[in-house]
Amino acid sequence: MELTPPTQDLVLDQPTLDVSSAESFLQQSMDLILEDAVMKATDRSQKVCEWVPPEQLQQLLDLDLRDTGESEEALLRRCRDVIKYSVKTAHPRFFNQLYGGMEPYSMTASFIIEALKPSIYTYEVAPVFTVMEKAVLKKMMEVIGWEDGDGIFNAGGSLSNMYAVNLARFHHCPDIKECGMSASPRLVLFTSQECHYSIAKAAAFLGIGTKNVYVVPSDERGKMIPGALEELIVKATHEGAQPFMVNATAGTTVLGAFDPIHQIADICEKYGLWLHIDACWGGAALLSKKHRHLLKGIHRANSVAWNPHKMMMACLQCCAFMVRDQTHLLQRCYSAKASYLFQVDKFYDVSFDCGDKSIQCSRKPDAFKVWLLWKALGTSRLEQRVDRALAMAQYLTQQIKAREGFRLLMEPEYTNVCFWYIPPSLRQLPDCPELWDKLHKVAPVIKERMMKKGSLMVGYQPHGDRANFFRMIIISPQVSTADMDFVLDEIQSLGQDL
Amino acid sequence: MELTPPTQDLVLDQPTLDVSSAESFLQQSMDLILEDAVMKATDRSQKVCEWVPPEQLQQLLDLDLRDTGESEEALLRRCRDVIKYSVKTAHPRFFNQLYGGMEPYSMTASFIIEALKPSIYTYEVAPVFTVMEKAVLKKMMEVIGWEDGDGIFNAGGSLSNMYAVNLARFHHCPDIKECGMSASPRLVLFTSQECHYSIAKAAAFLGIGTKNVYVVPSDERGKMIPGALEELIVKATHEGAQPFMVNATAGTTVLGAFDPIHQIADICEKYGLWLHIDACWGGAALLSKKHRHLLKGIHRANSVAWNPHKMMMACLQCCAFMVRDQTHLLQRCYSAKASYLFQVDKFYDVSFDCGDKSIQCSRKPDAFKVWLLWKALGTSRLEQRVDRALAMAQYLTQQIKAREGFRLLMEPEYTNVCFWYIPPSLRQLPDCPELWDKLHKVAPVIKERMMKKGSLMVGYQPHGDRANFFRMIIISPQVSTADMDFVLDEIQSLGQDL
Repeated sequence: MELTPPTQDLVLDQPTLDVSSAESFLQQSMDLILEDAVMKATDRSQKVCEWVPPEQLQQLLDLDLRDTGESEEALLRRCRDVIKYSVKTAHPRFFNQLYGGMEPYSMTASFIIEALKPSIYTYEVAPVFTVMEKAVLKKMMEVIGWEDGDGIFNAGGSLSNMYAVNLARFHHCPDIKECGMSASPRLVLFTSQECHYSIAKAAAFLGIGTKNVYVVPSDERGKMIPGALEELIVKATHEGAQPFMVNATAGTTVLGAFDPIHQIADICEKYGLWLHIDACWGGAALLSKKHRHLLKGIHRANSVAWNPHKMMMACLQCCAFMVRDQTHLLQRCYSAKASYLFQVDKFYDVSFDCGDKSIQCSRKPDAFKVWLLWKALGTSRLEQRVDRALAMAQYLTQQIKAREGFRLLMEPEYTNVCFWYIPPSLRQLPDCPELWDKLHKVAPVIKERMMKKGSLMVGYQPHGDRANFFRMIIISPQVSTADMDFVLDEIQSLGQDL
Repeated sequence: MELTPPTQDLVLDQPTLDVSSAESFLQQSMDLILEDAVMKATDRSQKVCEWVPPEQLQQLLDLDLRDTGESEEALLRRCRDVIKYSVKTAHPRFFNQLYGGMEPYSMTASFIIEALKPSIYTYEVAPVFTVMEKAVLKKMMEVIGWEDGDGIFNAGGSLSNMYAVNLARFHHCPDIKECGMSASPRLVLFTSQECHYSIAKAAAFLGIGTKNVYVVPSDERGKMIPGALEELIVKATHEGAQPFMVNATAGTTVLGAFDPIHQIADICEKYGLWLHIDACWGGAALLSKKHRHLLKGIHRANSVAWNPHKMMMACLQCCAFMVRDQTHLLQRCYSAKASYLFQVDKFYDVSFDCGDKSIQCSRKPDAFKVWLLWKALGTSRLEQRVDRALAMAQYLTQQIKAREGFRLLMEPEYTNVCFWYIPPSLRQLPDCPELWDKLHKVAPVIKERMMKKGSLMVGYQPHGDRANFFRMIIISPQVSTADMDFVLDEIQSLGQDL
């Protein structure tokens, strides 16, 4: 596509890249993507992953970047290899993370974004995506139960949680923006032991300190204990610290537990604390009349993080951070008023320039990925998908309870189904430390075997003093009860000799 | 594609989304993207933007999200509208931001990423992209002049700069990660008045405080004055503050100026300060034997931010943050050791799991977008592109100097060409406040007219006490000297009656 040889003198009087000559390469690469990265990548008869150890993969892919370029034919081969050795996260046998499945409408939106390369800071350069983001946030806030509010999409739920911590701090003590924390009292926040690790990362990054994250015990179901929260708040105050926020989790990462929002909101009101709900994973339950009770009270929160890229299947990344405030708190907290972007003498209503609410400068218009999907399915089908995923988790739970050699960790509230597989050799052991020591080693071996076979991907982890167990995550309408049965059959077949 | 009506009972024993039935929709949408969002969007005979005011655009796009979904035909019409009303940032007449142009190889990589939906935290779920990120960082560090180091790609240059500030703080005082800043001395950092606004945003976000960003004066070319830096460091220390870092900018946002790195590095060494280089915009000059002198001394930096999505034309976003340290500082600073992701009993070398270096949890494999491009062009053609963009900026500069009614702000060092257009009615005025007051109002009107006509997009801004001027940014090999002439002709034709 380059029209001049690399060694030649610079040619200025004509373009040296002609897009029309790129059309055939793009056409070929799109065909390849549709065939290999979409159709084959979601086909049950194909592997979910093609395991190669890191050192070997580095050799095989010939990653070095050189002085001389390569032919388009060679590049297409490279693309084919990249796809081949990548994990197929949209495959119906991928249950490894809090996202998965293939969503054609959202994928289309993603491709359009990549082709247009918009950056959403000013209305001027991203008109469509600016007004679209507003519309999506408005709808999501309506689902939460807010009449109005503010918000921003950003690059991941961890960042949304960081936005929340910083905003709560600004609300508590606006001077910190200018003066920093070195002269401030010791500010502390509260979250449950089951919360996402981004709360600790936020405290470290924001200069609050991980020690000032007070970890509230959770009950056996993984839900924050409100009484314990109140005790800790009182304790912190007695220590001379200043509590400023509580993070409650709606859909914890491992167990899929929902903190009791109403009770936590009561405590926040009593002590004047900002209530943030990390609903990155569980937010989608709000779309279901049947299941939205899991987040009862969420309308009382000051801020909410909710990732449509998880249960709602928008393409990665699609993460909303929303604030109930109607006094431009977000803008006041984050603005830096760069005069080269946010000129005051523009010819349109500059209240549409949303970039100064953000910690990012260039920012992708991720809201489009959920907007097109929502337009395609309507709220009714989104609800149906959520209901179906939860019903599927119930089916899997029943199968686990009914099968010999499987043991459920607890009844799931959401679609995290946590369980142990107990190989025949361990089934006669009593419920003693020896059993759990041995069981702890089972899941990692089965995981290794499923990866090397490429038949399935399910995560495992230890949890508190619990031995390693599997965590199934169910999201996609591509899966059926037959896939649930397959998961258990496959784990059994991979682990029965252990 | 949904196989059941929305009102029906949940069907569990078969998939309710069949990817094979999505193939035709995806095929149609890919055809549409190639035609409208790539070919037409880069065609000079088409508009660069289709201006509609915000309120009207909101109506026109019918953004509301409803209970019922829409037909695929309707969705494709919506996609066509989204493209139509979006700004064409890859169009040869888009010079508005620090990115632009159409890059077919990087675009292909982007599409593959969107289809595969990888998230780069563990080798397990993103094997290819994990080793690829390492390879790209290694190459970029080699170009900087480091033998080794560490790094991470992330969602924007602003975040890279925040990483740097936090890392420098951690290096200066590791206890802050745990204990926070409330008991710490007042930490201060130094940057020039021309630096990117993300440095101030970082100070606010990280709890350092915007007041503790000491702004070093720049000379008339926009370069930090090293003597003034040293004075400020001494002053801050006398005030009882603790200096911990200096940010130097290689390629400032407005003027494209390069701070004198060697002299700043000398001062950093003398006072034991972390030196970060924000080379987000100017880093690409390192690829050019002719122009890399602009960043002379960059190998002495402790950390560097460099965005291949700017001058190197990788698709948005593609931003590297690199650290010279070889003692796992990045990992120690950022790690939170989430046991559900970073299991210690994995069957492969977990040093490849890079997610715990990040403030994000899910993170996109942006390095692929520059890797494929680099493989396609080789370093030699990347160098040629950089050289050509700078030569094109020189051509434009000469034309501005030669044309009546145009006035250059200063000779450019990079491809930011800053200039005023002076309409005939103002040409007889002496160089007095009245002229500048009137001139200040010219650029906004011309900008409004070019947007409404859709013929061109060039940014303008005030700067210090300088009246509004245009800032041309030249990047893409799609443009030729004819486009430069067009820019001046068009501005003249749009503004001659003012």
